[in-house]
Amino acid sequence: MSFLDKLNERYATKAMNGEVVPQEKIDNILEAIRLAPTSSGLQPFEVFVITNDEIKSKIKEIAWNQSQVTDCSHLLVFAAWDNYTEDRINYMFDLTNEIRGFKNEGWENYRQMLLSSYPQKDAETNFEHAARQTYIAFMAAISQAAYEGVDTTPMEGFEPAALDKILQLREKGLRSTLILPIGYRDADKDWLVNLVKVRKPMEKLVTFL
Amino acid sequence: MSFLDKLNERYATKAMNGEVVPQEKIDNILEAIRLAPTSSGLQPFEVFVITNDEIKSKIKEIAWNQSQVTDCSHLLVFAAWDNYTEDRINYMFDLTNEIRGFKNEGWENYRQMLLSSYPQKDAETNFEHAARQTYIAFMAAISQAAYEGVDTTPMEGFEPAALDKILQLREKGLRSTLILPIGYRDADKDWLVNLVKVRKPMEKLVTFL
Repeated sequence: MSFLDKLNERYATKAMNGEVVPQEKIDNILEAIRLAPTSSGLQPFEVFVITNDEIKSKIKEIAWNQSQVTDCSHLLVFAAWDNYTEDRINYMFDLTNEIRGFKNEGWENYRQMLLSSYPQKDAETNFEHAARQTYIAFMAAISQAAYEGVDTTPMEGFEPAALDKILQLREKGLRSTLILPIGYRDADKDWLVNLVKVRKPMEKLVTFL
Repeated sequence: MSFLDKLNERYATKAMNGEVVPQEKIDNILEAIRLAPTSSGLQPFEVFVITNDEIKSKIKEIAWNQSQVTDCSHLLVFAAWDNYTEDRINYMFDLTNEIRGFKNEGWENYRQMLLSSYPQKDAETNFEHAARQTYIAFMAAISQAAYEGVDTTPMEGFEPAALDKILQLREKGLRSTLILPIGYRDADKDWLVNLVKVRKPMEKLVTFL
């Protein structure tokens, strides 16, 4: 089935039935996140995969009480770097050299350019930039889940500061941006499941120049 | 071929050969953008598809002179809403009612909630939120292009304010966030084409709780 068919088929599932998603499918979704492109390849985020019922319940309380947070199989939390630091930048460039087995002059110049720009910016600007990258990985996860035949609910509807506290993200230099319940729809309880997908017509979205 | 294979295959193409991508493939990429999920389904952005050589050249000048900007077939510019307004919110809710053919009380309550929150926030906060959504659509475009067998170069490396001027985006209530050259690789000139993809190991990216 084509990617467009998958995008048409998927929807923001409003009720889940608690059934467990096999680990292999979760692993594939995580691999899609890992492979997603990011700015300068820095992958400036981490992902928390939550199956613990107690943690899920705590998160539900600060996520408008949405049932999918506890009725999902796995809850993903996307957390962006709170800042770009020298160490974080150097880690990815060192990893690149290690994996590729050589140093490239152009790439080293690029490292120096990033080192002389990112860490000098204020943390909020850097966080916002890192946060944007999580949305790319988020879409990779949603897409892979569609191919795995499992449902997801893309969610911004939670209190990031409260979630950061629950998972102690600030202490890890992270700030939550998105959560993604993964599971299986409870069609009888899902008001959205049979409603037609609504999108702007192409002419409202696209201009050719 | 699986989505994971496609993610592994694609790469940020560093040189393109000028060959034209068939319109049908471009249309499919735009359809993937149109179908991408966004916060509250508002699709708070527009996309500009540029084939005009003069405009491409102007953009190249404010995009670190990257050759793909002019050597691509089609250059996509993603531009987020500069703010959430009542009109923009109402348009999507009215469209939903029109397409689904009925008004839903819960959905109307949700409209009121958005109307009573977004327009009251400062424009910069709202723009930043809208900007994040473009990254979701960006990944949809990159993914569909991979399925179409065409190359892309995800780019943040340009001066947004200058691009906004070239395309007169501010006058349209828009601000550029991302550009995406679409075309075919020039393998002989592309330093990245044969280098192995580098990603963090899973254990640096993911924590199970």
